[in-house]
Amino acid sequence: MTTQELIQQIKIKKSFLCVGLDVDLTKIPQHLLATEDPIFEFNKAIIDATHDLAIAYKPNIAFFEAYGLKGWISLQKTINYINEKYPEIFTIADAKRGDIGNTSAMYAKAFFEDLNFDSITVAPYMGKDSVEPFLAFENKHTIMLALTSNEGAFDFQTLQVSGTRGEAKELYKQVLETSKTWKNSKNLMYVVGATKAEYFTEVRKIVPDSFLLVPGVGAQGGSLQEVCKYGMNDTIGLLINSSRAIIYASNGTDFADVARTEAMKMQQEMQEIVRLKFKL
Amino acid sequence: MTTQELIQQIKIKKSFLCVGLDVDLTKIPQHLLATEDPIFEFNKAIIDATHDLAIAYKPNIAFFEAYGLKGWISLQKTINYINEKYPEIFTIADAKRGDIGNTSAMYAKAFFEDLNFDSITVAPYMGKDSVEPFLAFENKHTIMLALTSNEGAFDFQTLQVSGTRGEAKELYKQVLETSKTWKNSKNLMYVVGATKAEYFTEVRKIVPDSFLLVPGVGAQGGSLQEVCKYGMNDTIGLLINSSRAIIYASNGTDFADVARTEAMKMQQEMQEIVRLKFKL
Repeated sequence: MTTQELIQQIKIKKSFLCVGLDVDLTKIPQHLLATEDPIFEFNKAIIDATHDLAIAYKPNIAFFEAYGLKGWISLQKTINYINEKYPEIFTIADAKRGDIGNTSAMYAKAFFEDLNFDSITVAPYMGKDSVEPFLAFENKHTIMLALTSNEGAFDFQTLQVSGTRGEAKELYKQVLETSKTWKNSKNLMYVVGATKAEYFTEVRKIVPDSFLLVPGVGAQGGSLQEVCKYGMNDTIGLLINSSRAIIYASNGTDFADVARTEAMKMQQEMQEIVRLKFKL
Repeated sequence: MTTQELIQQIKIKKSFLCVGLDVDLTKIPQHLLATEDPIFEFNKAIIDATHDLAIAYKPNIAFFEAYGLKGWISLQKTINYINEKYPEIFTIADAKRGDIGNTSAMYAKAFFEDLNFDSITVAPYMGKDSVEPFLAFENKHTIMLALTSNEGAFDFQTLQVSGTRGEAKELYKQVLETSKTWKNSKNLMYVVGATKAEYFTEVRKIVPDSFLLVPGVGAQGGSLQEVCKYGMNDTIGLLINSSRAIIYASNGTDFADVARTEAMKMQQEMQEIVRLKFKL
């Protein structure tokens, strides 16, 4: 999917909501456990109930790998279902991958070609040659960790480093700056957590045009209004992720309906923002 | 496997060689492609030919995921084969994982419980709560990236950062120091590349007792003697990885024999080092 197509979907749906699919068999409605593939059945119901309110789905790969072969089958069925039934949806493999060049190339093949995701999340620690193999794919998007929403984000990401011109800055800013020099860097997006909205001002000084995938709104305490205030650009430029607050809003037989209700609350808040931005 | 058992194996085999299983179907002997599971058949032959010379095998997870469901089956068969036939072998899932706490816990379940690996490689960027879920497993080992052997290592890992006491140091040193404060940090090992052996002196000042997984000897230009000179500790404390130089030494029907010859060259160089160290 091209960035223009993604922006078009934001305008059409008046939403920039991403629904995270972190499917834990201990948390889903118990009646689904009797089906042949509970993870897929759960995802399918959530997707059918929210596809007109969300512009993106983000399967969390760990939650599939944790179920081994069965989990991998559920992942394939989930991504195929989205790509076939709702091809307008932007798909994110939340995998946080990153390794030496030839290995990253294999991960890129796995997620971009075989599974046909539109994008994947990657980690920056190993630098340029660990990320460029992902960037080589045309109309695929590589979403690199910049400033995450967890407590451990402050262990290393906000350390003061000496920049290439000797000036002090936080590590995540150097990561953003350096990544802009990489080949095909136009295919980069970034993960920026919502927990401290003021950081978005700093991020936007470095990457004004890039899309940002934003976890941490809702369950982790971030505010949508604050994130938009500091992080939005001319094309919205934000994908706001919500996982547990939507998919686990109910664990009864009404789970899909209740998930829809929660997704709609977020979409309605976003609707006004999109209308104002694009004068719709 | 406990660390003591690993050290015991080093003494018995007079080796600290780890063989990396990066199986690329375009590089393996073509006659294997006619078998039902070429990846597993290749691994099985390599393992049978080198198991008495190596103390560890390191399947590179990307190379399995790149083949989707079939790759995952090959991975399961490979790890099961090692665990059943050669239970004395230390197994490393080279996965470079790392995510927020509940997600890292799922990866830990996948690799430590379901697949029953002895260890996994992880990335440090997301900090403490992204690594501690792995550390919680008793007699399992979490091998964190510190200083890698690729070109991109110098993008961020060697940046000067302001340490917690205000003093300047390279990022990888801060990563090592901070990780020592985490819960169950005794279960940590570290990835330190062989490309600049002098770095091992610095690493050993911070983590004198930890095992280091060392890529980059051979194919990438590092020298075994240099790495040992600067990086060895009282119990050897090194796992020297070699992947392509061993497994792709021949792509004919003699590939396993030639792999054995290459592995033996490394083991023989290590043999003298182990004898001297333990006065055997």
